[in-house]
Amino acid sequence: MIKVGIVGGTGYTGVELLRLLSNHPNAEIVAITSRTKADTSVSDLFPNLRGHLKLRFTEPEPIRLADECDVVFFATPHGVAMDMAPKLVVRNTRVIDLSADFRLSDPTIWEHWYGRPHAAPDLLTEAVYGLPEINREMIRQARLVACPGCYPTAVQLGFLPLLEQRLVDPSQLIADAKSGVSGAGRKAAMGALLCEASENLKAYSVSGHRHHPEIIQGLRQVSQSPVGLTFVPHLTPMIRGIHATLYARLQKEADLQGLYEQRYAENPFVDVLPPKSHPETRSVRGSNMCRIAVHRPSNGSTVVILSVTDNLVKGASGQAIQNMNLMFNLEETSGLTNIAIIP
Amino acid sequence: MIKVGIVGGTGYTGVELLRLLSNHPNAEIVAITSRTKADTSVSDLFPNLRGHLKLRFTEPEPIRLADECDVVFFATPHGVAMDMAPKLVVRNTRVIDLSADFRLSDPTIWEHWYGRPHAAPDLLTEAVYGLPEINREMIRQARLVACPGCYPTAVQLGFLPLLEQRLVDPSQLIADAKSGVSGAGRKAAMGALLCEASENLKAYSVSGHRHHPEIIQGLRQVSQSPVGLTFVPHLTPMIRGIHATLYARLQKEADLQGLYEQRYAENPFVDVLPPKSHPETRSVRGSNMCRIAVHRPSNGSTVVILSVTDNLVKGASGQAIQNMNLMFNLEETSGLTNIAIIP
Amino acid sequence: MIKVGIVGGTGYTGVELLRLLSNHPNAEIVAITSRTKADTSVSDLFPNLRGHLKLRFTEPEPIRLADECDVVFFATPHGVAMDMAPKLVVRNTRVIDLSADFRLSDPTIWEHWYGRPHAAPDLLTEAVYGLPEINREMIRQARLVACPGCYPTAVQLGFLPLLEQRLVDPSQLIADAKSGVSGAGRKAAMGALLCEASENLKAYSVSGHRHHPEIIQGLRQVSQSPVGLTFVPHLTPMIRGIHATLYARLQKEADLQGLYEQRYAENPFVDVLPPKSHPETRSVRGSNMCRIAVHRPSNGSTVVILSVTDNLVKGASGQAIQNMNLMFNLEETSGLTNIAIIP
Amino acid sequence: MIKVGIVGGTGYTGVELLRLLSNHPNAEIVAITSRTKADTSVSDLFPNLRGHLKLRFTEPEPIRLADECDVVFFATPHGVAMDMAPKLVVRNTRVIDLSADFRLSDPTIWEHWYGRPHAAPDLLTEAVYGLPEINREMIRQARLVACPGCYPTAVQLGFLPLLEQRLVDPSQLIADAKSGVSGAGRKAAMGALLCEASENLKAYSVSGHRHHPEIIQGLRQVSQSPVGLTFVPHLTPMIRGIHATLYARLQKEADLQGLYEQRYAENPFVDVLPPKSHPETRSVRGSNMCRIAVHRPSNGSTVVILSVTDNLVKGASGQAIQNMNLMFNLEETSGLTNIAIIP
Repeated sequence: MIKVGIVGGTGYTGVELLRLLSNHPNAEIVAITSRTKADTSVSDLFPNLRGHLKLRFTEPEPIRLADECDVVFFATPHGVAMDMAPKLVVRNTRVIDLSADFRLSDPTIWEHWYGRPHAAPDLLTEAVYGLPEINREMIRQARLVACPGCYPTAVQLGFLPLLEQRLVDPSQLIADAKSGVSGAGRKAAMGALLCEASENLKAYSVSGHRHHPEIIQGLRQVSQSPVGLTFVPHLTPMIRGIHATLYARLQKEADLQGLYEQRYAENPFVDVLPPKSHPETRSVRGSNMCRIAVHRPSNGSTVVILSVTDNLVKGASGQAIQNMNLMFNLEETSGLTNIAIIP
Repeated sequence: MIKVGIVGGTGYTGVELLRLLSNHPNAEIVAITSRTKADTSVSDLFPNLRGHLKLRFTEPEPIRLADECDVVFFATPHGVAMDMAPKLVVRNTRVIDLSADFRLSDPTIWEHWYGRPHAAPDLLTEAVYGLPEINREMIRQARLVACPGCYPTAVQLGFLPLLEQRLVDPSQLIADAKSGVSGAGRKAAMGALLCEASENLKAYSVSGHRHHPEIIQGLRQVSQSPVGLTFVPHLTPMIRGIHATLYARLQKEADLQGLYEQRYAENPFVDVLPPKSHPETRSVRGSNMCRIAVHRPSNGSTVVILSVTDNLVKGASGQAIQNMNLMFNLEETSGLTNIAIIP
Repeated sequence: MIKVGIVGGTGYTGVELLRLLSNHPNAEIVAITSRTKADTSVSDLFPNLRGHLKLRFTEPEPIRLADECDVVFFATPHGVAMDMAPKLVVRNTRVIDLSADFRLSDPTIWEHWYGRPHAAPDLLTEAVYGLPEINREMIRQARLVACPGCYPTAVQLGFLPLLEQRLVDPSQLIADAKSGVSGAGRKAAMGALLCEASENLKAYSVSGHRHHPEIIQGLRQVSQSPVGLTFVPHLTPMIRGIHATLYARLQKEADLQGLYEQRYAENPFVDVLPPKSHPETRSVRGSNMCRIAVHRPSNGSTVVILSVTDNLVKGASGQAIQNMNLMFNLEETSGLTNIAIIP
Repeated sequence: MIKVGIVGGTGYTGVELLRLLSNHPNAEIVAITSRTKADTSVSDLFPNLRGHLKLRFTEPEPIRLADECDVVFFATPHGVAMDMAPKLVVRNTRVIDLSADFRLSDPTIWEHWYGRPHAAPDLLTEAVYGLPEINREMIRQARLVACPGCYPTAVQLGFLPLLEQRLVDPSQLIADAKSGVSGAGRKAAMGALLCEASENLKAYSVSGHRHHPEIIQGLRQVSQSPVGLTFVPHLTPMIRGIHATLYARLQKEADLQGLYEQRYAENPFVDVLPPKSHPETRSVRGSNMCRIAVHRPSNGSTVVILSVTDNLVKGASGQAIQNMNLMFNLEETSGLTNIAIIP
């Protein structure tokens, strides 16, 4: 059994890690930390875990975590992992970071978006971007994996085949993305109140969102060319789910449906739907799947890709476990065979 | 008092007409018809109207409606108004049609999308498209007004100033539109069940939606050039509201914010928000406002317009009453001063 | 025009007062205060008010409020009104308090539930409990009205006729009440997040809720006997609405339906539904109505009363305006004829 | 592997059986029938099952089902199982019926509530009521198990310890129950539309509900005395979940908390919460748990029990599998260790 530690277990990606890892056949949670909830029983905070998990939250102590754990997940706000990860990695405990700390390879860009210098620029070079559909082999060898953000996962998986094959104009990409409210995390913010966010829909951060540079970095890598992306995120009245609606201008003819099916054939968590399909976010709720449909309205020059994920699973905790499975030579799907809940 | 009749009062646009007209200072509802509910008291079907409206549903009889009413609203599925409207108009009763029957000026296109020949092609020529922000003066004189669909209202009001001034490439427009479930009408359809539509989001009709030709027709008229539009509607888990996110490629520089403010200055139901704003659908819930924000991310070549309406008010019944006010020389805002309900 | 001031206009009862008063034919809002938002335009905080209200929030200053206003509403947390109201009343400005400060006539009980001594015990004696269906004549004369809480309104209106006629055992009353989340107010509390409160239902405060003594006080007054009440409030996944399901043991036979209809015949905001009805909370959403249905399952000894209100209207701001209308000899329904929004 | 057939797999209890059985370590789904969807791939109807289940719907043919299956689940409307079950049982295929056909032991009462004579009164005598917390040993031996309804499960588990110990007056029980909309099944009914059922709450069937006689039958059995129960079901705006709030009059003192903990100690799917708790429906969403809290407000004579389940799991499909596990000598929890999804 792989011994797992979780730093910052009180948020939504934390409780989702707990839900998924509690039933993982090859992993055992041995430590979970929270400064604010130290000594509280985990199942007092999350009653769904009653009877499944007996742990209490502890203070985060890197040395002890390194001693006890084969791998440590960070489900923390940005700024925590970059301080603690070096102490773990140096002691041969692997790190899977769900926060933004190691996603951007350029520390200058990181500083620009997060407002302070990066604390571990050396590790930044070593960190592997944890999108298995692109970096599977590098992840297997990684000591430190930076899990992609929720929007970047859905958007990159949607655009990937088009850009790899240089079928579309990379300077005119549009990603209109819709997210459930859990993407904002478990904090008492006015805009996330039921009375503010339900029966309501709005765009936000149109002039700039922290996931924008991350998506750009990923798309540029696969297209090997500069990328122009208009990214508009929207807050929608549901708990979980991301629906990315992607628009691109075709510059070459191709069998798009065939291309997508082939590209993802060996990827257990990307499901290319039949032609004319419209994936629903609920078809992946609670599961690690990304479902994609390819459209070309009126056979014109605009391709429309629909890509859905559960932001807390494939967009965060599920993908983190998928990375763990790869890092420890387990079945990629181990512990991730949950079926989405419908209705 | 203007004597008003409503044909087809059992759907969502019907009950919304009732809600708004019951408190209209210059109008009186004298007849409301429904084949299936004839003789039922209206407030038995819609208990919110108890104490406000004493009418019963009656069978739809055009001659009697013409005798009793100054104006008749059609809140029916397509195919009803085109049969009955001629009998009313010829008897000098004006008609405001909320259905699709008179929206498309070309009967061939109508037939293509609705699957049967148009029953009143002559009236089609006379019908005025009831978007006051474009056709205000023609509406004042009209005998027959075709109210725009819900998506077309939000999309056209958003694109209008850009196309009138030829600032953007009309061949590369994108409208990513999100609608509440009430847009599907009050019928027992599986996909509109709470258990299917809540906690869920999906695109639909990506390969073609009936509102597409209507939007194209309107945009072509104002741009006086061919128009290429990719239109992707989405079903979102809320009752009311449309959020249209519009993308266009700038081909000329301009003060976009100033342009929008000026264009809509004299239009009481279009509210251009300050720069950097993100309109929320709930800010118009139950009201006849359309709120618009203008963005140009990173000062690049893509303009992003955010346009929100309540699909049942400015997208249907409120706009119908706005048209009535114009046709009868009332204040344009008469009976439409309801404030949106927050929270 | 009655000159109105509002202290504490940033919460949900505040914005609801603004929505209703902005369209009131006999009242004009001249001042609205908020310590935290002083100088902010009201419509920046509540965009639904754009175009309807031009005021800015100001610092709360009792003397100036007394000078400018005929009446001042308090839409504040408890503890504010009891400090400021005396300064207004003494200057002949009437006060309508939506908070809990003047609801409990016994200052000892108030201190027990609110954890500090009452600051204005003299005024407490004078304050009139603002439930017009019981105290209409006293309200007309009042200088200071204490508006009932949301649960107490729905529960008292439901039990009232039974207790006045001594038809049921007052020692065995049960009120199982379900509330929308807006009852918790507009504050960033974890439990009110969409991700915590939607797709979820729970009871709370079963061992004691601050509305319990208020309901007891009211029921005891009308029954003129001690009252035993089990009160269980529930948080339900919707924004607005209270549904009180009331259980009582019959001790005398009577025509219950007739009794309720007669009791509320002259009360414009209580609607007794026909026998066998099940009132829906949405039938009063946004309106000042309370709708009640009377049941006696299997003709047994247990009476079941169903009573619904909008917690922000009849349960708070609408009722406050109803009280204002009475205090200023206006039509009781003035400014309160809004029809509930369905759907 | 136990070979499983499902009759009527297109409803919500059907897809929930599929979700749970697809991951069951000891069972294999070999047949799933639907008259209306015969030949359709199951995953075309329920896209969450893509990649997990390759079956197609077939016509329901009892002989073939008996040949192929060790056990057949009926997830059908009432009236189907009582026709087909005899043909299966006689061929040694066991039957687990999720419908109402075999729940009421008295065929006269069945006929009264379901409007036709019972088709298999002999089997009715043999059928075991599938509430393992009462009938565990009989279930192990049963050929035909009648799974309890969703309300009856939550209500009986809540009242059980009190009635077994004769602590409360059995003639004055009250069950105020709140259900998510999925309890109404997957059918296109007007009242279950998102636009009708969301942002809304109402009681229904106050004068009589089909689950009433079932609950009475169960409670009478454990209390061994006549039972008087007032049962008021409510429709609440969420997909899944039942919250039963139960009221009873104490007639004897006892350690209620200890009693409940002891009564359910050996029952893996009943979780008695610590004193003062308020169980949330989401704490069991997607899981087979029933969580119960025991309250005695003000230490008075009224006991309040809060009991929550997921109506589709412990209230239907999960309980059916729990019964299967018992019938086939598997671990009672086999295939049922899913953790509830929060958020």
